[in-house]
Amino acid sequence: MKNTNSKILDCTIRDGGLVNNWDFSVEFVRDLYYSLSEAGVEYMEIGYKNSPKLLKGGDAGPWRFLDEAFLREVIPTKTDTKLSALVDIGRVDENDILPREQSMLDLIRVACYIKDVDKGLELVEKFHNLGYETTINIMALSHALENELNDALQEIGNSNVDVVYVVDSYGSMNPKDVTYMTEKFKRALPNKTLGIHTHNNMQLAFANTIAGIDAGVEFLDSSVYGMGRAAGNCTTELLLGYLKNPKYEVRPVLGFLEKHMVAMREKWEWGYNIPYMLGGMLNEHPRSAMALRAGGDKDKYVEYYDRLTTPETAFGSGKSE
Amino acid sequence: MKNTNSKILDCTIRDGGLVNNWDFSVEFVRDLYYSLSEAGVEYMEIGYKNSPKLLKGGDAGPWRFLDEAFLREVIPTKTDTKLSALVDIGRVDENDILPREQSMLDLIRVACYIKDVDKGLELVEKFHNLGYETTINIMALSHALENELNDALQEIGNSNVDVVYVVDSYGSMNPKDVTYMTEKFKRALPNKTLGIHTHNNMQLAFANTIAGIDAGVEFLDSSVYGMGRAAGNCTTELLLGYLKNPKYEVRPVLGFLEKHMVAMREKWEWGYNIPYMLGGMLNEHPRSAMALRAGGDKDKYVEYYDRLTTPETAFGSGKSE
Repeated sequence: MKNTNSKILDCTIRDGGLVNNWDFSVEFVRDLYYSLSEAGVEYMEIGYKNSPKLLKGGDAGPWRFLDEAFLREVIPTKTDTKLSALVDIGRVDENDILPREQSMLDLIRVACYIKDVDKGLELVEKFHNLGYETTINIMALSHALENELNDALQEIGNSNVDVVYVVDSYGSMNPKDVTYMTEKFKRALPNKTLGIHTHNNMQLAFANTIAGIDAGVEFLDSSVYGMGRAAGNCTTELLLGYLKNPKYEVRPVLGFLEKHMVAMREKWEWGYNIPYMLGGMLNEHPRSAMALRAGGDKDKYVEYYDRLTTPETAFGSGKSE
Repeated sequence: MKNTNSKILDCTIRDGGLVNNWDFSVEFVRDLYYSLSEAGVEYMEIGYKNSPKLLKGGDAGPWRFLDEAFLREVIPTKTDTKLSALVDIGRVDENDILPREQSMLDLIRVACYIKDVDKGLELVEKFHNLGYETTINIMALSHALENELNDALQEIGNSNVDVVYVVDSYGSMNPKDVTYMTEKFKRALPNKTLGIHTHNNMQLAFANTIAGIDAGVEFLDSSVYGMGRAAGNCTTELLLGYLKNPKYEVRPVLGFLEKHMVAMREKWEWGYNIPYMLGGMLNEHPRSAMALRAGGDKDKYVEYYDRLTTPETAFGSGKSE
């Protein structure tokens, strides 16, 4: 069965930037864009469109605070591969956003926690009115109460958003969870396109994406070599090999992997390891595992597990985060 | 739904030995045995019962040529965790095998290619008559012709073997393939218990094992931190976290990971990388990818891909291997 409805959205720069504080050279990003174009990838998320006025971290490089003039230098000639940016609630200055016909960007994605869906949809409407394609990505779905989610889906159904994402922020879902959640979204949002964003804490990012495809999801997030926060994402190369659509070619991405990702992987850590696995298993934000991996106790697994599973000492699992 | 029929068979020593030429200390193997026992794991495959007379590699350490007297030193007191050994067709001297009541071993597993199923079953009968539990593991199932497989399953159905394995030697199967294959095995072998052995070339080893469980497989192969040939196996720690059975505990295995596997992983390579991924995607024996990773061209992905996909230069994909 052909996967002609599937669209790959590569978020190596955006989610991978959470690994290396957006330390990507212009050459890296440019090579990625043209490699993905050759491979047939439909979208590349080139960073965050946050405002440096509203978010600390001005040292994080241009990919966290995308600027149109800079983008034109990075991508001198656009291909069929569309460009996307993510915005966070409360961190975007709407005055920074040009109408789509003057912008390098095609798609703006709004990420929010379930309690902020109303704020998220307000942003979506603004971007929609400026001519952009839009998505809403409800993070930390595995911590949402069912009634909260039902309310949120109803609000979303009444909005102009184009694509609604199932987001497994903590890498805690398995293929059956994805099937269940996708079917729930489909019932609540019969007129919306669905997307999926997975994390690899339990080595299920690719399998969960396949489960999403089988349940009717069309927008598939991935990153090259899985580069993304903590355990990382579904890999772009695996999707290119799996999807049955003659336009996809894995070979251009292999060239990019060889030229750029070997060195990147030597310098920075992401992917499956025991603290991230435990975070997925226990449905926890990866914050504490990332802090552990950055320190001298990075391989003290038992102590970390005991902290996570002892109610008096558990940390970093606030429902709203 | 509880997984009370599932049994974990940890093959860290046996399959992991294909990574480090069986360079495991007695302390490593002993600690693994008692950690797995505490975790509730039912079987530990402690190596190969090949004969040094029939196979070169006498420098590979005792785990490739298991000896009963040595095993008694390694495991002074047996727990509820049973011990297993794998034998290869043509490499086992039957005179080396004691009757089960005099042996440390409980289970002998016979691995063979489909063309040797008759030879495999001959061995199975001998071990069965000596009192052992037995399995037959047909390797490289993804290279078997359907009519060959049908014949083999019929022969197996008429034998005394206890467990029949679905083996994804090349890491080329996805969850749907596993479901299809398991259902085929179940139809052909209604009176046999089924097992599954997966490889992680496409990051699907755990997901494929879950698909197997859902389709009725009971024996689940895994290894700690996935240590196994090339891309490795389904990880034992993920299974312990996933299976709903109150007897399983992940914590003892975390202690083992911390004490032994961090250093092992620094010294030896296994797990997902691009050449192994390509092997899975293209349904190839990992031989050529392992050779590539051992040499100076280990990250020349495009050249390797071109060799694998150009008929005149393809290598290492003999159907019978």
